[in-house]
Amino acid sequence: MMISLPTRFEAYGAVKIFELARVLELDSLGVTTKLSGTYTVSYEVLEEYAASTAIVVPVKDEDIIALEGVLRAIPHASPIILVSASRSSPVDVYSREVELARTIHSVTGREILVIHQRDPAWAEVLAGTPLEAMLEDGMVRRGKGEGMVLGVIAAAGIGARYVGFIDSDNYVPGAANEYSKIYYLGFSLSESPYTMVRIVWHYKGKLASSDMYLRKRGRVSMHTNNVLNYALSRLRKVETDIIRTANSGEHAMSIELALRLRWAGGFAVEPYELVQLLEDCFLGVDEGRCSFLPDGVNIFQIEARNPHIHAERGDEHIAGMLAESLGTVYHSRLGADETVKERIHSLLRDYKYEGEPPRPRVYSLEGVDPSKLFSALLAESTMTHYFK
Amino acid sequence: MMISLPTRFEAYGAVKIFELARVLELDSLGVTTKLSGTYTVSYEVLEEYAASTAIVVPVKDEDIIALEGVLRAIPHASPIILVSASRSSPVDVYSREVELARTIHSVTGREILVIHQRDPAWAEVLAGTPLEAMLEDGMVRRGKGEGMVLGVIAAAGIGARYVGFIDSDNYVPGAANEYSKIYYLGFSLSESPYTMVRIVWHYKGKLASSDMYLRKRGRVSMHTNNVLNYALSRLRKVETDIIRTANSGEHAMSIELALRLRWAGGFAVEPYELVQLLEDCFLGVDEGRCSFLPDGVNIFQIEARNPHIHAERGDEHIAGMLAESLGTVYHSRLGADETVKERIHSLLRDYKYEGEPPRPRVYSLEGVDPSKLFSALLAESTMTHYFK
Repeated sequence: MMISLPTRFEAYGAVKIFELARVLELDSLGVTTKLSGTYTVSYEVLEEYAASTAIVVPVKDEDIIALEGVLRAIPHASPIILVSASRSSPVDVYSREVELARTIHSVTGREILVIHQRDPAWAEVLAGTPLEAMLEDGMVRRGKGEGMVLGVIAAAGIGARYVGFIDSDNYVPGAANEYSKIYYLGFSLSESPYTMVRIVWHYKGKLASSDMYLRKRGRVSMHTNNVLNYALSRLRKVETDIIRTANSGEHAMSIELALRLRWAGGFAVEPYELVQLLEDCFLGVDEGRCSFLPDGVNIFQIEARNPHIHAERGDEHIAGMLAESLGTVYHSRLGADETVKERIHSLLRDYKYEGEPPRPRVYSLEGVDPSKLFSALLAESTMTHYFK
Repeated sequence: MMISLPTRFEAYGAVKIFELARVLELDSLGVTTKLSGTYTVSYEVLEEYAASTAIVVPVKDEDIIALEGVLRAIPHASPIILVSASRSSPVDVYSREVELARTIHSVTGREILVIHQRDPAWAEVLAGTPLEAMLEDGMVRRGKGEGMVLGVIAAAGIGARYVGFIDSDNYVPGAANEYSKIYYLGFSLSESPYTMVRIVWHYKGKLASSDMYLRKRGRVSMHTNNVLNYALSRLRKVETDIIRTANSGEHAMSIELALRLRWAGGFAVEPYELVQLLEDCFLGVDEGRCSFLPDGVNIFQIEARNPHIHAERGDEHIAGMLAESLGTVYHSRLGADETVKERIHSLLRDYKYEGEPPRPRVYSLEGVDPSKLFSALLAESTMTHYFK
């Protein structure tokens, strides 16, 4: 892969946010001389980063064809962690996912770990730890953020140095392959141990919508990017549109960063990553709130070339997702400015959402020993399958 | 890339047609031990085949976004030959394509040759050669097959050992990347200098159709595969369904094979490749008609993982395309059997096509010196652009 070299960045305290870089060539096979302004790495370096990156694939009752394409697209060297929230009855979707992982492993030899978000073993393992807050009625809560936290624990548990997230509702396997390589390149660019790589979709589309139309971005991201940029512009007194990836489900980070982050539940998870970094390491850096000093955090934003085509789901409630997303800003120091709050209210009213957006539920991994939790899970769980 | 090892084949005289193989992993980055039944190659081998394969991309007034994605997806090491039949007025689509190629070359350094099918220089160059038959009114005829012949001449002219075709009307760049790698792997599998690799789409879909629906294959291919398999079954007295790729636009071959093939014009080009090989090297092998002895021809058929998503075009006439396609069988020794002819008539009647399907217009490269033609083109043409 060859990308445009990310050079310009804006610095907010200890947080460096790089301007959008783009994929110039999906495949740099055979590149011998690098032209100025481009960035690529050798096969050996790519392999090294691939082998140290666990790819977490959250899945919930997804079309098995889309999931299979994603699993077959992630480079062989990266261990896959499938975090399922799929049902077991009346149709046992979860056991089909386990079978798929087993088959792929047995034919290709690739490493796949399958865990279930609602596995009762998690309750035993998490009880008494700071993550007990994720439990409800003896199980880990449903929610995307909660599943991602389990993925981070597992990634650290199997010894990965990096963790990347790739959604399973993607009908373009080539996109999943591209996202993985973007993560590897982004990691290799960073000079800080605290690195995050966030992907911008080139286009997205929905299958079986009334007509297929490739959108540049989703409405939730558009509004959240807008609000975050507005809040930053107000604080700096200089207008900015640096943030392009507020809701990027496709993103990745170093394990050191993942374990020091606080994680939000549900759909607040991705914007909250940015909000807390800006709260702690920009607004709160002088109060000693930033855990990422002296190196600071590098955030790369890279636009993929493949379209992201996913299935139309009946259970998407734009207003609710938008409120969860904007709630992260609203209840933060970035939202202390009344004009920011007013803009959030005004956006939400367009979606018939009245009142305050919800405050994100937040989980901290501080004081958690992921290797210990993961070993305990392997010992306790009957639902976990580790094919390696 | 890791594919299932193609092992079973059917032999028709000097033609070996392999059963469908499948892509198991898009990216074998990091594979160290190969499991039985799988096939992959090292990075070095992949690079070697990539560098010796020219990828011909035929384009005709295509959405520039789709074309750009395809150009950026083909591995860097493979020279690209863009064969344009796009208009120059009222909008100058061709000069936009040249600009795109120039920009990609100047940023990434990759090799791109751009030629135009209707370039008057071709007439000067081809006059007096066996390919004069391609000319009409002082220009190369319009038609897909004719453009592909020019691509083969150019590929041989720049010294490529292999030539692969990838359509430009593809909204999934990852698919173009995958096709290229399938070609490299197929070439590396073959023990004959006469090798062909034909791709089966996993799914195809159309953009902006009334609703997006991923089809397993197009109607033209379905019927042509069916007729070819029926003809072979009648000849062998054993039923077969070996042929899965009668109309595969996505296919590739060694230059030795390409220069010894006869090429059909228009939409007949892909099925005619198979038909003539079966006529000459199966039915006609004892009469000395096969030019590929003693090695014989190896045809690999490999199913890609990415969907093929293209734009809905107003100018697709299924009945006409089907007739051109089935005409290759009808007018061959495979169609000598009256029941085969009857099946073709019956299929065509379902599409309101009455009468005999057209006989393919056929061009032979025998006695043509492609390097000489290509040098003459470079010297004569003002429309050719070679960015390297």
